Amino acid sequence: MNPADASWKRVQESFERQGLMRHLGVRLLQARPGLCEVALPYSERVTQQQGGFHGGAIGALADIAGGYAGLTMAPESMEISTVEYKINFLAAFDGGELRAIGRVVKAGRRIIVTSAEVLHLAADGRESQCAVMQQTLVPVSKNYTFNLIGEPP
Amino acid sequence: MNPADASWKRVQESFERQGLMRHLGVRLLQARPGLCEVALPYSERVTQQQGGFHGGAIGALADIAGGYAGLTMAPESMEISTVEYKINFLAAFDGGELRAIGRVVKAGRRIIVTSAEVLHLAADGRESQCAVMQQTLVPVSKNYTFNLIGEPP
Amino acid sequence: MNPADASWKRVQESFERQGLMRHLGVRLLQARPGLCEVALPYSERVTQQQGGFHGGAIGALADIAGGYAGLTMAPESMEISTVEYKINFLAAFDGGELRAIGRVVKAGRRIIVTSAEVLHLAADGRESQCAVMQQTLVPVSKNYTFNLIGEPP
Amino acid sequence: MNPADASWKRVQESFERQGLMRHLGVRLLQARPGLCEVALPYSERVTQQQGGFHGGAIGALADIAGGYAGLTMAPESMEISTVEYKINFLAAFDGGELRAIGRVVKAGRRIIVTSAEVLHLAADGRESQCAVMQQTLVPVSKNYTFNLIGEPP
Repeated sequence: MNPADASWKRVQESFERQGLMRHLGVRLLQARPGLCEVALPYSERVTQQQGGFHGGAIGALADIAGGYAGLTMAPESMEISTVEYKINFLAAFDGGELRAIGRVVKAGRRIIVTSAEVLHLAADGRESQCAVMQQTLVPVSKNYTFNLIGEPP
Repeated sequence: MNPADASWKRVQESFERQGLMRHLGVRLLQARPGLCEVALPYSERVTQQQGGFHGGAIGALADIAGGYAGLTMAPESMEISTVEYKINFLAAFDGGELRAIGRVVKAGRRIIVTSAEVLHLAADGRESQCAVMQQTLVPVSKNYTFNLIGEPP
Repeated sequence: MNPADASWKRVQESFERQGLMRHLGVRLLQARPGLCEVALPYSERVTQQQGGFHGGAIGALADIAGGYAGLTMAPESMEISTVEYKINFLAAFDGGELRAIGRVVKAGRRIIVTSAEVLHLAADGRESQCAVMQQTLVPVSKNYTFNLIGEPP
Repeated sequence: MNPADASWKRVQESFERQGLMRHLGVRLLQARPGLCEVALPYSERVTQQQGGFHGGAIGALADIAGGYAGLTMAPESMEISTVEYKINFLAAFDGGELRAIGRVVKAGRRIIVTSAEVLHLAADGRESQCAVMQQTLVPVSKNYTFNLIGEPP
């Protein structure tokens, strides 16, 4: 399998098991080494109190775009866990859909750093900046114990 | 109305209009000046690929706990928008429910800084640290134009 | 004055009044609308316990690169204050010098969001990634009262 | 040696090797398991363009308070490196001194999460909030290779 196909397969298999993403209606658009793109269409499932996309939904979208970009660079036997992320919201939107593109900034054995940008696509095709994120990931074994930061020292 | 009742009423009215929170099953537990607590029960609507609570759902929960803590300190005529937040995940969990407690660190006219801690409550009552967040909010007028950072200079 | 010259003059006048930057030996390399680049040569004034560049010095360098990129986009009568920043360290270095390039992600009247990347230049000319930063700024009047987040509501 | 004395000795030995801290005039005030406090007196070495404490100096102070709090919890044979931190500035100050208190939020084998608060002490003894920080650390072996995030996968 070429690297792009292998990345897609790997990300998609994990993506399909995410109840939150299925429930919110997120679609996987791209996955290749070092990059992942996902889309979130507007619906009443993702709104805040003013009817715009909820910051929590935008954060979740950016989190998985960055996380899956990181997964494409992790050793085959490993999964990825998010250590932390930081997201800035630039503008609020309703209607249309959001696109989040995650990119690996630097990948190491111990830590993977990514960034993501979230864009809004209006129904008329206009594209606007929505949010930017910076994220820290760790590769973890597939049956890790749910303790993200490791056993006590 | 006493301050605690006024805070509760104010937060609840906004909270009920959030489609995302309704769909995820989030409940408002506490709202008083400078503090807000919310709960997210485990369901397949909030899972990641390993069946644990999704980081995106944890982030959304912490975001609103901090945001509504901030709302209780904002002038009556204003709403709150999240400028940015940063969240560290400490451990993953399935089952039971998550509790996020947001607290105002410092409230100003221009900017409100908050923090939130997210705890996991297992079915057997055991409580564990799940995540910590640090957040920046701005008070905005109730009919703001969806441009969170303001018009171009 | 053309925009690039005006940006340079504006940034340089502020830069020269920063005792910390003078003391650490930071040089201003570029300032044009939306961008600023600064350099920090290695010296024993900027080391951590292993003799590498100190994270605190790297953070300070990234902070001003982003901050001055923001200043070039703020109204003439305003200064800039840092609301917050978040920095990821990618690798440690000794010798040579660091370069930080700050860029405006989005500039508004109320808030300016920037990013910065920090590179290491070795004595032999090799360039390596050192750190990435994401930052929130606010325009403030030139005689602001030192209360960054505004008076209490 | 009791745990408090051992923490102090361990932190102090590392602290004394930091050129940046020596040059800025930082003093170590407290180090016990899970906590570290440091002080930075006002001088023209730490100023920004308005004569207040520079955000870069505040960030450096918070970084080492959190980092050394983390060091007290790391295995004996290990040092600590900062993966990332995020700092919010609450108010600016001149004169007096800054105090940063770092606390371990959760310590694991792989990752240590800390927070720090920075206070200003005026000459007249008045204490004010200055900044809050949230930080991610990794334990590293004492002769680590300066590649903070690990070799490429």
